[in-house]
Amino acid sequence: MKLSARNRIKGKVVEVKKGAVAAQVRVDIGGGTVVTSMVTVDAVEDLGVREGGEVSVVIKSTDVMLAE
Amino acid sequence: MKLSARNRIKGKVVEVKKGAVAAQVRVDIGGGTVVTSMVTVDAVEDLGVREGGEVSVVIKSTDVMLAE
Amino acid sequence: MKLSARNRIKGKVVEVKKGAVAAQVRVDIGGGTVVTSMVTVDAVEDLGVREGGEVSVVIKSTDVMLAE
Amino acid sequence: MKLSARNRIKGKVVEVKKGAVAAQVRVDIGGGTVVTSMVTVDAVEDLGVREGGEVSVVIKSTDVMLAE
Amino acid sequence: MKLSARNRIKGKVVEVKKGAVAAQVRVDIGGGTVVTSMVTVDAVEDLGVREGGEVSVVIKSTDVMLAE
Amino acid sequence: MKLSARNRIKGKVVEVKKGAVAAQVRVDIGGGTVVTSMVTVDAVEDLGVREGGEVSVVIKSTDVMLAE
Repeated sequence: MKLSARNRIKGKVVEVKKGAVAAQVRVDIGGGTVVTSMVTVDAVEDLGVREGGEVSVVIKSTDVMLAE
Repeated sequence: MKLSARNRIKGKVVEVKKGAVAAQVRVDIGGGTVVTSMVTVDAVEDLGVREGGEVSVVIKSTDVMLAE
Repeated sequence: MKLSARNRIKGKVVEVKKGAVAAQVRVDIGGGTVVTSMVTVDAVEDLGVREGGEVSVVIKSTDVMLAE
Repeated sequence: MKLSARNRIKGKVVEVKKGAVAAQVRVDIGGGTVVTSMVTVDAVEDLGVREGGEVSVVIKSTDVMLAE
Repeated sequence: MKLSARNRIKGKVVEVKKGAVAAQVRVDIGGGTVVTSMVTVDAVEDLGVREGGEVSVVIKSTDVMLAE
Repeated sequence: MKLSARNRIKGKVVEVKKGAVAAQVRVDIGGGTVVTSMVTVDAVEDLGVREGGEVSVVIKSTDVMLAE
């Protein structure tokens, strides 16, 4: 699948925390950077996301802010 | 300023493309990864974003998807 | 690629309008419903989106509002 | 109310799952497509969203990605 | 129409700037605060947004960040 | 820190509700307007958000819809 979202970075899952509906997943993308994602619990289970597993983070360009 | 957005990664601006309202900024965050951002032209000018300059990309956790 | 975004609907491109940075793409998903998408011009060109072509619309669950 | 969000599709609620803060609502929009939405529990209660009820899903065009 | 988006604030349009696809609208919501919105040109024309006109800004709670 | 997000409004926290992953924070920005935010519990704790405290709400322009 090719996606319009411009940003996709591979990483390793370092934490999965599940609530009733929302889940927080933290992904180490290398270089000392850990990215935090909040998705549905359904998505975590459907993708089989688990600590130590490989996953990519995907981000639309309109969702990337800039800071100085 | 401390921000609720969980993700902030430093990088170097490699491209700035401006339309009438929207601007596309590409930021090299290291490790061979270039992140694409779409913000307003006003923001680019207000922050003084320019090719070669340093900038951070900032992303809310609800805007980070996962892919396998 | 399996994606955490919960919503994916197949359709046919009925309009592509390009600005300098942003592009608007309208996709007929059947049942009389046409979905409007705003993405980067880069994405439109990278995916080869063109009128009459097939494409899926993909939407994160946190981006789906409800109205009554 | 007329809204800038370009996409509005009528459907029937097929599932409501509530956490402490976030709620997941699944809406059948016909043609075999069920859309998943994550909103606040407050919104679900304020709108009186319940299984079997009618509701529209509303999506901004910048939140619609494309995939091929 | 009742909407799941939790935030709706009335204001007066103080600027409309149109590109080919994206438009920037600035809305004075009182108390010295002007809110900037980026929507499609189609939305601006469909709603008849014009300088001096009244309009509400609407924001989903997942799109509201906090800063200290 | 200077941010590309165009909208920042100061206020006072009037409610903090925490789930396992997501938290809802309501902020009084004056003029009778209370803004609802949904962020991660981690963000609430990291920023030390508490009822009665001062905080700013920050919103990207692409996340501001218009309604008439």
